[in-house]
Amino acid sequence: MKKTMKESRTIQTSHVLPPDTNHHGTLFGGQLMAYIDNVASIAATKHSRSLVVTASTDSVDFLKPIRVGDAVTLEAFVSYTGTSSMEVFVRVTTENLLSGDQSVAAISFLTFVAIDSDSNTVKVPDVIPETEEEIWLNETAENRASHRKARKLHS
Amino acid sequence: MKKTMKESRTIQTSHVLPPDTNHHGTLFGGQLMAYIDNVASIAATKHSRSLVVTASTDSVDFLKPIRVGDAVTLEAFVSYTGTSSMEVFVRVTTENLLSGDQSVAAISFLTFVAIDSDSNTVKVPDVIPETEEEIWLNETAENRASHRKARKLHS
Amino acid sequence: MKKTMKESRTIQTSHVLPPDTNHHGTLFGGQLMAYIDNVASIAATKHSRSLVVTASTDSVDFLKPIRVGDAVTLEAFVSYTGTSSMEVFVRVTTENLLSGDQSVAAISFLTFVAIDSDSNTVKVPDVIPETEEEIWLNETAENRASHRKARKLHS
Amino acid sequence: MKKTMKESRTIQTSHVLPPDTNHHGTLFGGQLMAYIDNVASIAATKHSRSLVVTASTDSVDFLKPIRVGDAVTLEAFVSYTGTSSMEVFVRVTTENLLSGDQSVAAISFLTFVAIDSDSNTVKVPDVIPETEEEIWLNETAENRASHRKARKLHS
Amino acid sequence: MKKTMKESRTIQTSHVLPPDTNHHGTLFGGQLMAYIDNVASIAATKHSRSLVVTASTDSVDFLKPIRVGDAVTLEAFVSYTGTSSMEVFVRVTTENLLSGDQSVAAISFLTFVAIDSDSNTVKVPDVIPETEEEIWLNETAENRASHRKARKLHS
Amino acid sequence: MKKTMKESRTIQTSHVLPPDTNHHGTLFGGQLMAYIDNVASIAATKHSRSLVVTASTDSVDFLKPIRVGDAVTLEAFVSYTGTSSMEVFVRVTTENLLSGDQSVAAISFLTFVAIDSDSNTVKVPDVIPETEEEIWLNETAENRASHRKARKLHS
Ligand SMILES: CC(C)(COP(=O)(O)OP(=O)(O)OC[C@H]1O[C@@H](n2cnc3c(N)ncnc32)[C@H](O)[C@@H]1OP(=O)(O)O)[C@@H](O)C(=O)NCCC(=O)NCCS
Ligand SMILES: CC(C)(COP(=O)(O)OP(=O)(O)OC[C@H]1O[C@@H](n2cnc3c(N)ncnc32)[C@H](O)[C@@H]1OP(=O)(O)O)[C@@H](O)C(=O)NCCC(=O)NCCS
Ligand SMILES: CC(C)(COP(=O)(O)OP(=O)(O)OC[C@H]1O[C@@H](n2cnc3c(N)ncnc32)[C@H](O)[C@@H]1OP(=O)(O)O)[C@@H](O)C(=O)NCCC(=O)NCCS
Ligand SMILES: CC(C)(COP(=O)(O)OP(=O)(O)OC[C@H]1O[C@@H](n2cnc3c(N)ncnc32)[C@H](O)[C@@H]1OP(=O)(O)O)[C@@H](O)C(=O)NCCC(=O)NCCS
Repeated sequence: MKKTMKESRTIQTSHVLPPDTNHHGTLFGGQLMAYIDNVASIAATKHSRSLVVTASTDSVDFLKPIRVGDAVTLEAFVSYTGTSSMEVFVRVTTENLLSGDQSVAAISFLTFVAIDSDSNTVKVPDVIPETEEEIWLNETAENRASHRKARKLHS
Repeated sequence: MKKTMKESRTIQTSHVLPPDTNHHGTLFGGQLMAYIDNVASIAATKHSRSLVVTASTDSVDFLKPIRVGDAVTLEAFVSYTGTSSMEVFVRVTTENLLSGDQSVAAISFLTFVAIDSDSNTVKVPDVIPETEEEIWLNETAENRASHRKARKLHS
Repeated sequence: MKKTMKESRTIQTSHVLPPDTNHHGTLFGGQLMAYIDNVASIAATKHSRSLVVTASTDSVDFLKPIRVGDAVTLEAFVSYTGTSSMEVFVRVTTENLLSGDQSVAAISFLTFVAIDSDSNTVKVPDVIPETEEEIWLNETAENRASHRKARKLHS
Repeated sequence: MKKTMKESRTIQTSHVLPPDTNHHGTLFGGQLMAYIDNVASIAATKHSRSLVVTASTDSVDFLKPIRVGDAVTLEAFVSYTGTSSMEVFVRVTTENLLSGDQSVAAISFLTFVAIDSDSNTVKVPDVIPETEEEIWLNETAENRASHRKARKLHS
Repeated sequence: MKKTMKESRTIQTSHVLPPDTNHHGTLFGGQLMAYIDNVASIAATKHSRSLVVTASTDSVDFLKPIRVGDAVTLEAFVSYTGTSSMEVFVRVTTENLLSGDQSVAAISFLTFVAIDSDSNTVKVPDVIPETEEEIWLNETAENRASHRKARKLHS
Repeated sequence: MKKTMKESRTIQTSHVLPPDTNHHGTLFGGQLMAYIDNVASIAATKHSRSLVVTASTDSVDFLKPIRVGDAVTLEAFVSYTGTSSMEVFVRVTTENLLSGDQSVAAISFLTFVAIDSDSNTVKVPDVIPETEEEIWLNETAENRASHRKARKLHS
């Protein structure tokens, strides 16, 4: 069975609220990671239609501070599939709601594993890239997967 | 100045998390209202490109319970404009992520007022409905607005 | 069986805390709605002595901003009963704790439905108004109930 | 200047919500202490009409577990005054909302100190006990105050 | 069976975050009490290797305000044991992370009771003090315990 | 200027609480990432004695689920320094408090950058590894740093 990347695409726009920001009014890195994991897990569950657990957060690059009052939009979709594992790509854009200016604030890759209710891993559908960006993400994924394995061996 | 309804359209998909649910595992009405206000205020700010405050929550009909583990999607856009006030329509759909079944869980109308930093009301762009649903929402809005005024007189 | 409005009356005074306010230091409308639903559901449960769910938030009019540091008092009681449904009235007053000045900040009507543990609706006691305000609220409730039904038909 | 105990009396009824409970469904002691401090600080501010800080929590005796779904009511008032310090008494009662059964769940004494915006202590009005309970609380307060001082010397 | 105080020693360092502070940027007493209870209950569980409930918070003296941005370190260990009860001592130190300056911000004593899954009390190991501070805490505990009993008689 | 790894070492033990877990009672990956970022930023601030921002979360490997009721201990220290950047290593161990069994639940590397109050980067002290583990972490850091750079080029 195969599914397109579009089928797992999940969008979340929300306000940056004061409790999630430090005393300089910018969003905590850890809070953004919590949002990223939440949205990415929806994308992984839509793709696999099974329970999923986060196996690793491979990288989160914080490119710009996100300020209180901004709207932040997270866009997540499955970018690569192994047997039971799925790589999910998340792009975070931020919008100054008064001016309408937008910029990319963070880019992240996470890996989820599909499991059944006894915590055994289950097979997931293959993912089909369609757009140019999707094809690029899919092709570079093998490289990220091998880096992940090397990293885990040493832990 | 005029803007389409599409320009203020805001989408938020998230997981229903245990802390937001009662001990029967269904979402609190009050918690959903907090989500609705958050997303609706982004739509109102996108339309007016000004500060906004919630003037009233005109109605929220909770049609179905929302269960922990479901994904809940809120879709908000400005459906009617007065001078400084904007009516925002919010539709809440819920998805059982394992089966993919979706249903409409709640429908809501709120009114926001655009203000400047001294809390004076400011004029907002007119809104242009395009689709059939948008035209219907816009036409029935006069009726809801007059009901709102009658209600406030008595408070 | 009949019960007075006083028997379901519920009071909640609390501090407006920074995490519940925007970056201008005033309470979010959505946060106040979460408080309102919490207190109103206690009043509905006291009246029916059964499980209850929020069927609708019929209106919340936010008359004044509520500032961080203020005390906010919510007063809720059942104002009208149908067969299984109860209308709850909630008045929100705010107090500047340093000066002692008080004002009404919001007025709200919600509808709760009494259910058993299988989610079937159950009959609720009739409510008896006693004071002048209670009688006025009860008499105007028929009108609000019919407006609610009209609204739901179109959703 | 003098004020009665009644003038600072503050009531807070709320639902015990799942996020505030442990995995046995009973309220965390620490969470109840956060509620107690919040309500007690309103009573102290009403009495002194000044900023206040918590100087000490003298005792909290947890008499009964509080279960998720229960309503919990906190009642706080100033029970004794020194020069700049105020002892606040807080009684916590819990109600099983389905049966209407009530019981006292906790009893607490806290001390607040009135300060100005430069953190200097300021004088507070004397408190006048009226009812029998109020008189008993006020008379036994000297003893609690001297125990507090002895305790602080050793810290 | 006997255990040293060191065996239950638990350390928690965290950042003071804006949602836990008032609008003057200092930590709420109630919030610190919630942290204290959380850490103290880990120490009590490590000592007894059983379920525990908070029986009382015997005293918390707040010596210094704790500012947003500071690191706060809680250190907890069992300081005295009865049959099924354990007194836990918690010391809170605060560090200005830019200067490295540290000070003791609060001192607290709590009592936990060990229970089994049917809520029956269970016997706990005796605790052995080793350092000078531990011996002092243990010797003065009898006095605190008798004060606790006197207090409860009157409630 | 040079500092040992020990000087930035930060420990945080806390209870896994229900609001941070999914409906299977295990901690959300995103929640653990928020804890990791909080503790790691304290370690980075202790090392640099300056403001810090999270530049990237380089990897988090979630090796074992963490269950509600467990104690979770995070240990963080600076493992490598560039000019203004610091790599922080975080090890997460979990303890079943009833049995005392412990295991490593996650391993993470993050990068923080030291800034002044105008957001200009500032130089940080060099870090000195002492133990065998510290030396290994420091030696393998060059490799992780070059992988980070390659990753960012493509984003
Ligand atoms: C993720 C987990 C199920 C993997 O278990 P495991 O015994 O290593 O499983 P396997 O070796 O059979 O590997 C299963 C898949 O996971 C992948 N995987 C395992 N560890 C991984 C990691 N750290 N990063 C990325 N992928 C990983 C494997 O490559 C394999 O992929 P494939 O099926 O596509 O070939 C297990 O480590 C776990 O339960 N971790 C905790 C998850 C959790 O609770 N997260 C939140 C923590 S707060
Ligand atoms: C909303 C608010 C600015 C309106 O102030 P006001 O003095 O009534 O303003 P005006 O009479 O000039 O009315 C301005 C617009 O608001 C509309 N309005 C006022 N009250 C309203 C209500 N309850 N519901 C819907 N619209 C309302 C008016 O119809 C008018 O619309 P128009 O400009 O399109 O013709 C004021 O009531 C307020 O600040 N409320 C508190 C807002 C807040 O803090 N919300 C969160 C509370 S927790
Ligand atoms: C509320 C609910 C039980 C009503 O179910 P239903 O199938 O419409 O029930 P019925 O048609 O038998 O109506 C029962 C009563 O509810 C009232 N009711 C139904 N929808 C209502 C609405 N939107 N607003 C006000 N009252 C409503 C009916 O008028 C009727 O009142 P009565 O018994 O006094 O005559 C159902 O819609 C539901 O479960 N909604 C979700 C509740 C929830 O989870 N809230 C929180 C969401 S986050
Ligand atoms: C409370 C505080 C202002 C007292 O400061 P101080 O220098 O001890 O003040 P003083 O010696 O002048 O005492 C002022 C009053 O406080 C009382 N007091 C001081 N410490 C106290 C304690 N631990 N318990 C009870 N009362 C206390 C004194 O008895 C005196 O009372 P009186 O004016 O009625 O005679 C100071 O300790 C403080 O700022 N603590 C931190 C408060 C805080 O931030 N709380 C939240 C912590 S998370």
